[in-house]
Amino acid sequence: MKKVFFWILILPLVVHAQINADSLFIKKISDEVLSNGKAYNLLYQLTKQVGGRLAGSPQFAKAIDWGKNSMQLMGADTVYLQQCMLPHWVRGKGDKVQIIALNDKKVTMPLDALALGNSFGDGKTITAEVIAISNFAELEKKKNEVKGKVVFFNYPFNPTYIIPGRAYGESGIYRYSGPSRAAKYGAVAVVIRSLTEATDNNPHTGSLHYDSAYPKIPAAALGLQDADALWNYCQSSKVKIAITTHGRQLPDTIGYNVIGELKGSEFSDEFITVGGHLDSWDVNEGAHDDGAGVVHTLEVLRTLKAIGYHPKHTIRFVLFANEENGLRGGEKYAEIAKAKNEKHVFALESDEGGFTPRGFGFSVTAVQYQKIVQWQPLLKPYGACDFELGGGGADIGPLASYFKIPMAGLNPDNQRYFDIHHARSDVFESVNKRELLLGAINMAALIYLIDKNGI
Amino acid sequence: MKKVFFWILILPLVVHAQINADSLFIKKISDEVLSNGKAYNLLYQLTKQVGGRLAGSPQFAKAIDWGKNSMQLMGADTVYLQQCMLPHWVRGKGDKVQIIALNDKKVTMPLDALALGNSFGDGKTITAEVIAISNFAELEKKKNEVKGKVVFFNYPFNPTYIIPGRAYGESGIYRYSGPSRAAKYGAVAVVIRSLTEATDNNPHTGSLHYDSAYPKIPAAALGLQDADALWNYCQSSKVKIAITTHGRQLPDTIGYNVIGELKGSEFSDEFITVGGHLDSWDVNEGAHDDGAGVVHTLEVLRTLKAIGYHPKHTIRFVLFANEENGLRGGEKYAEIAKAKNEKHVFALESDEGGFTPRGFGFSVTAVQYQKIVQWQPLLKPYGACDFELGGGGADIGPLASYFKIPMAGLNPDNQRYFDIHHARSDVFESVNKRELLLGAINMAALIYLIDKNGI
Repeated sequence: MKKVFFWILILPLVVHAQINADSLFIKKISDEVLSNGKAYNLLYQLTKQVGGRLAGSPQFAKAIDWGKNSMQLMGADTVYLQQCMLPHWVRGKGDKVQIIALNDKKVTMPLDALALGNSFGDGKTITAEVIAISNFAELEKKKNEVKGKVVFFNYPFNPTYIIPGRAYGESGIYRYSGPSRAAKYGAVAVVIRSLTEATDNNPHTGSLHYDSAYPKIPAAALGLQDADALWNYCQSSKVKIAITTHGRQLPDTIGYNVIGELKGSEFSDEFITVGGHLDSWDVNEGAHDDGAGVVHTLEVLRTLKAIGYHPKHTIRFVLFANEENGLRGGEKYAEIAKAKNEKHVFALESDEGGFTPRGFGFSVTAVQYQKIVQWQPLLKPYGACDFELGGGGADIGPLASYFKIPMAGLNPDNQRYFDIHHARSDVFESVNKRELLLGAINMAALIYLIDKNGI
Repeated sequence: MKKVFFWILILPLVVHAQINADSLFIKKISDEVLSNGKAYNLLYQLTKQVGGRLAGSPQFAKAIDWGKNSMQLMGADTVYLQQCMLPHWVRGKGDKVQIIALNDKKVTMPLDALALGNSFGDGKTITAEVIAISNFAELEKKKNEVKGKVVFFNYPFNPTYIIPGRAYGESGIYRYSGPSRAAKYGAVAVVIRSLTEATDNNPHTGSLHYDSAYPKIPAAALGLQDADALWNYCQSSKVKIAITTHGRQLPDTIGYNVIGELKGSEFSDEFITVGGHLDSWDVNEGAHDDGAGVVHTLEVLRTLKAIGYHPKHTIRFVLFANEENGLRGGEKYAEIAKAKNEKHVFALESDEGGFTPRGFGFSVTAVQYQKIVQWQPLLKPYGACDFELGGGGADIGPLASYFKIPMAGLNPDNQRYFDIHHARSDVFESVNKRELLLGAINMAALIYLIDKNGI
């Protein structure tokens, strides 16, 4: 009885001391990142010196070298490459879309367009009448009018959702499946309204998926101003457009996940994974998507090393090879972990941009969430304190799924993300240094808490 | 007893229905702003068609016309101007600072500089040796070395504060008081490190205050890259610089607060004030500071009108005339309210930029805060749910202080603010449409809650 009484007295003090120690340690992380952070300089290198880096491209090979070298410079105990096969889609030269006739009267009105990723185009110009379609329900209603035409899906990006990612989730299907659904009814090509609410006219590319049952017709995205113009013309006129694209799927090539490790002091064969994806679309610098995640990962590594933290578990820092058009990097990482029968504890990804962090999304059990949620006050001063259930990342998904381990994703402020997502405007200049660094602070803090306390 | 029992049963339902009604109403506000919001277009007009608009300038007169017209277009029941006297500082032509000698060897190294607001410069070039000073303690130690020199205050903007506003609060004294503190010991001019952590080299202007006991010496701000370069030269060499500025205080001029009202249906002689300041610095478009606050104010007016809300209290929408270098607009507004013995309930200001809203700061009593804090869940979906004690705005300060009424300020995400604050880079392009609109949603929601429930 006395002992119990003693613990009733002492336990709050122990817990308090613990919280205090964690709080001080996270402040140390924060000061290190904000005073000496390299994430912004690294991002400059990746975006300006490597540039756009679609998986399979020569630029991607350059990114791998850069990633390996950076892992070493940031202080990893071990750095290695993990081979995987990559899809190799090339855009080819010059996506071109223009209005060539209004009510059979010749005009020349170029529309700013980007062929969709994975799309096919043989460089021959397709000219056809446009049928403007709001959504799939309308497509089904008008399926008999589609044959021989270019289908223009003008599904809007809902502006009333507070989190624009929700609008993306809803509109994404028109990019992914729209081309084959139009081809099913005999369309010769597809153009879509870009998945954005941006105030500029940049088209936004991204992957489509061809259903093998139907012809692989060319498909391109239009910027919003051109999409609005085309829509308006279609309401009052018969519109004819010409589309020329050159997309090709070349044979798969060899690529690599880039991996660095900080060796665990207590559980060296138990792994915590932190990562982002090294590949980007070809048309931009992939600064937010996912340059930010790459340099977040490198900054977490650098910071833990710089402040002399010796993790209990082995922490793996992974730059995944192929998120944008295949997910082969994440799948290979899980496959090898499985083959080696590794023990994995937790995985964290940053693939939502380098904006001010707001929180984390956790795919965890209710019991795990109860534990995690107690750390919210520790992260509150650094911004990422909105914890929610559900979240992770595309690249860590296969690992988490196979090992049934908890995973999480950094949730930065989402308002500007779809302005630049997959567009030419996703460049270094669109990233703010402090916002970027704050992401790394919160990620390092979460990794520290999980490494120290388990999950 | 039966009655009490009845209320115990029914009260939670009533409260719940109330919360539900508020939640639905705020969703209506949100949908209206995100679907039909004019704030971004208004900001375009104010920044690109009116431009920089320092109080007392011809551009400011243009801004008053624009503001009055916009109040009418947005649907105010009454629009009027409130006259006040304004300071009239002019920068004059061509701020120029350059290094002209290193260890007595002639060089020509231009430094990007902006004279500080309210500073004096007669257009004659001052050439003198530089004494580089870290802080006021060092100035005191070296006071005997200052005479005849240019004092360079290089006080850093502390990068480790998570809220950059805290660094501004700490460094601001070097801009405000530095020139006179240096003049006290015989300095002939002052240059300061700009109050920013920006990665570019833009100098940031802002007000100084001359102590009438000492000579009014010229003073200018340097961008960080030039400040670092000058500092480094000073560590190893005798550095001579030349400074030419043309700042002058002209006689006060007549200006106006622009006021629009929505008349209250129950308490038409009780006022709720919502505002931002119409003036900006002369060197930029004043997009975030305080174009955002101006168009937030107009958007709240437009939205409440558009959704058919009939406020209980009279809501005053005020574009204040002179925050940057005098506060005469805010003082006049309070003075007239006092003279008329008006009854004021609450005041809200937006003067922290048009970034994603994070919360509100309230200068209220503990009892009032207890009431307000219950509304947090209602604002959570829209972002501004971090409520904190302390806050308001410079322009509404005199009103709140005189009437002892509660006031609040919108707190947007602060990370990018000091990158552009008072610099040439505070332009329309630095404002994101969705982030701007979200500010207006949260402000309209708060005004609605206070109008309906009192405080």
